[in-house]
Amino acid sequence: MRAYNFCAGPAALPTAVLEKAQSELLNWQGKGVSIMEMSHRNKDYVAVAEKAEADFRDLLNIPDNYKVLFLQGGATLQFSAIPLNLLGKNNQADYISTGIWSEKAIKEAQRYGNIHTIDATFQKEGKTAIADSSTWQLSENASYVHYCDNETIGGIQFNEVPKTTAPLVVDLSSSILSAPLDVSKFGLIYAGAQKNIGPAGLTIVIVRDDLLDQTKPEIPSLLKYSAQADNGSMLNTPATYSWYLAGLVFEWLKEQGGVEAIHQKNLEKANLLYGYIDQSKFYDNPIAQPNRSIMNVPFTLADSSLDKEFLKQAEAAHLLNLAGHRSVGGMRASIYNAVPLEGVQALIEFMEQFATKHG
Amino acid sequence: MRAYNFCAGPAALPTAVLEKAQSELLNWQGKGVSIMEMSHRNKDYVAVAEKAEADFRDLLNIPDNYKVLFLQGGATLQFSAIPLNLLGKNNQADYISTGIWSEKAIKEAQRYGNIHTIDATFQKEGKTAIADSSTWQLSENASYVHYCDNETIGGIQFNEVPKTTAPLVVDLSSSILSAPLDVSKFGLIYAGAQKNIGPAGLTIVIVRDDLLDQTKPEIPSLLKYSAQADNGSMLNTPATYSWYLAGLVFEWLKEQGGVEAIHQKNLEKANLLYGYIDQSKFYDNPIAQPNRSIMNVPFTLADSSLDKEFLKQAEAAHLLNLAGHRSVGGMRASIYNAVPLEGVQALIEFMEQFATKHG
Repeated sequence: MRAYNFCAGPAALPTAVLEKAQSELLNWQGKGVSIMEMSHRNKDYVAVAEKAEADFRDLLNIPDNYKVLFLQGGATLQFSAIPLNLLGKNNQADYISTGIWSEKAIKEAQRYGNIHTIDATFQKEGKTAIADSSTWQLSENASYVHYCDNETIGGIQFNEVPKTTAPLVVDLSSSILSAPLDVSKFGLIYAGAQKNIGPAGLTIVIVRDDLLDQTKPEIPSLLKYSAQADNGSMLNTPATYSWYLAGLVFEWLKEQGGVEAIHQKNLEKANLLYGYIDQSKFYDNPIAQPNRSIMNVPFTLADSSLDKEFLKQAEAAHLLNLAGHRSVGGMRASIYNAVPLEGVQALIEFMEQFATKHG
Repeated sequence: MRAYNFCAGPAALPTAVLEKAQSELLNWQGKGVSIMEMSHRNKDYVAVAEKAEADFRDLLNIPDNYKVLFLQGGATLQFSAIPLNLLGKNNQADYISTGIWSEKAIKEAQRYGNIHTIDATFQKEGKTAIADSSTWQLSENASYVHYCDNETIGGIQFNEVPKTTAPLVVDLSSSILSAPLDVSKFGLIYAGAQKNIGPAGLTIVIVRDDLLDQTKPEIPSLLKYSAQADNGSMLNTPATYSWYLAGLVFEWLKEQGGVEAIHQKNLEKANLLYGYIDQSKFYDNPIAQPNRSIMNVPFTLADSSLDKEFLKQAEAAHLLNLAGHRSVGGMRASIYNAVPLEGVQALIEFMEQFATKHG
């Protein structure tokens, strides 16, 4: 049987997607070969890749003046590629910090230019919140403003698109496709695939045309957005199988009714879990209500010495990967698009039983 | 039915490997999740990753003073990473050219330092050959000497390990694991996975410990060999599923008897195909005998106007992807480890029939 998988990433994929991939793994559409044994220049493969892009554009209503790139290296390689491509002549950017992943982006960007950082979090009645962007002291000469929409480790998420004059660059790794998005508000959007898109090893970048050509001369060719855009993300062999799997996820998402429909389901799952935690005296979540992530729900037990027992019993109940990130401890339930409502219900039922027994 | 797949890359994988991957795609070893839905920090996944490395080390007898890295970005990202990591204070390297892939490496390296290039090919009785390394005019101050062992497009391959004083860096993308290798002769070995290792999206680097720390300060963190080595190739989320599949290929290769045994099979396949071409008046191969690739066999038809018909009939006979690279035309049969002897026999039978009919 398939378990409920609350892993933060590489994360759960829709069972229907895996079944389809399984059925055609050795012989894709009667062609006699696996799709992973096909050249990326093969016309059949190119059609698969193009359909994946078209479906993705459709799901997010991506305007024509944006390129969609299917790259490798994860969000972490983009931490380098973004400043190398976009710092421009000013060699300056603003970076907003809301947690560990924004800090990682900052640390890498500081190696290439002048980075002005703004800690946007504050404490509000014992909970962590994000300050409204109208209160931020942004630089005058920033080439762009970078932030991380959803901090996968901290479970803290923006509930607005920040208002800035410089182009907005966002790490959407753990929230892309979870809710509708107005792409036209951004200069560049990037996301590692391994949460809501597909398997690890694929990274999607959405970049506005006018930002394509600001590259420093010494940047590695493969990191140049303009070169990748000119070559349809096939400057070299892309991660063909991951791209194909992402396409299957996009098809699945359209069958679910698209991003608006999955957003309603995600809200239902998140409200159910936060609602249960809030009324419980045994569990606690550290984030202020308006900034709670709908994808990653960290929580602590009243007695942290019970953590190991909680994880052990959860695993026995087929509720997997609930340990918090190794840097923060506690628990975390990641409830991405592919985690069904039934999984959240089963988790809450287990949490109730555990609290009754140990509370 | 599965066809015979002569694709140059992404290339044929062993059917047994795909069958194993298929059988456990939704539920890996009874854990209730796919291995592609597992965190790279999960102890089960870490064991899979470590076994893959151990088997790979075993297959190539890699000495303990070499690190093995499982990276992303293909050989092309290594074209940047190698000079950025290894050019050192001299900022100088020698690059040997034997074809299109060595030229690509040269073009990228020239963006970072002083690159001395040597065209090592020459014409010998109408065929292309590689000059012995003793005749090369190498620089005195080169930090390393780079070459491409097997030119996938040209079908030309070294039949010796060049003798140099500076550390030797080799692109083994299309020949790794096809024949025994004395790793101790090299400073760094790299290979995109999509020929003899596994699916596209994984790149293996074997690097000698003393070369780990020569990095320029501005190099992207993810490209630093020392940082990747310190973090077991998990500086960020690696291409977990591709790494797992590579592990299955290594297990399969050990079952075949290892690299020495597969080398004998590869020689048998290559000798059969070249032998047929040589005695034919209808087909021709442009490479001098000692430098013929045992992995990629380019050939031309006496009448190139028959190329399309050849490809069409071959496909109907389930002999796929025999077109030469778009930059050179003609035909090319890539006969990597996963292509069985029966595939080469079927190809020769088809070639004979086609020549009889059209010759």
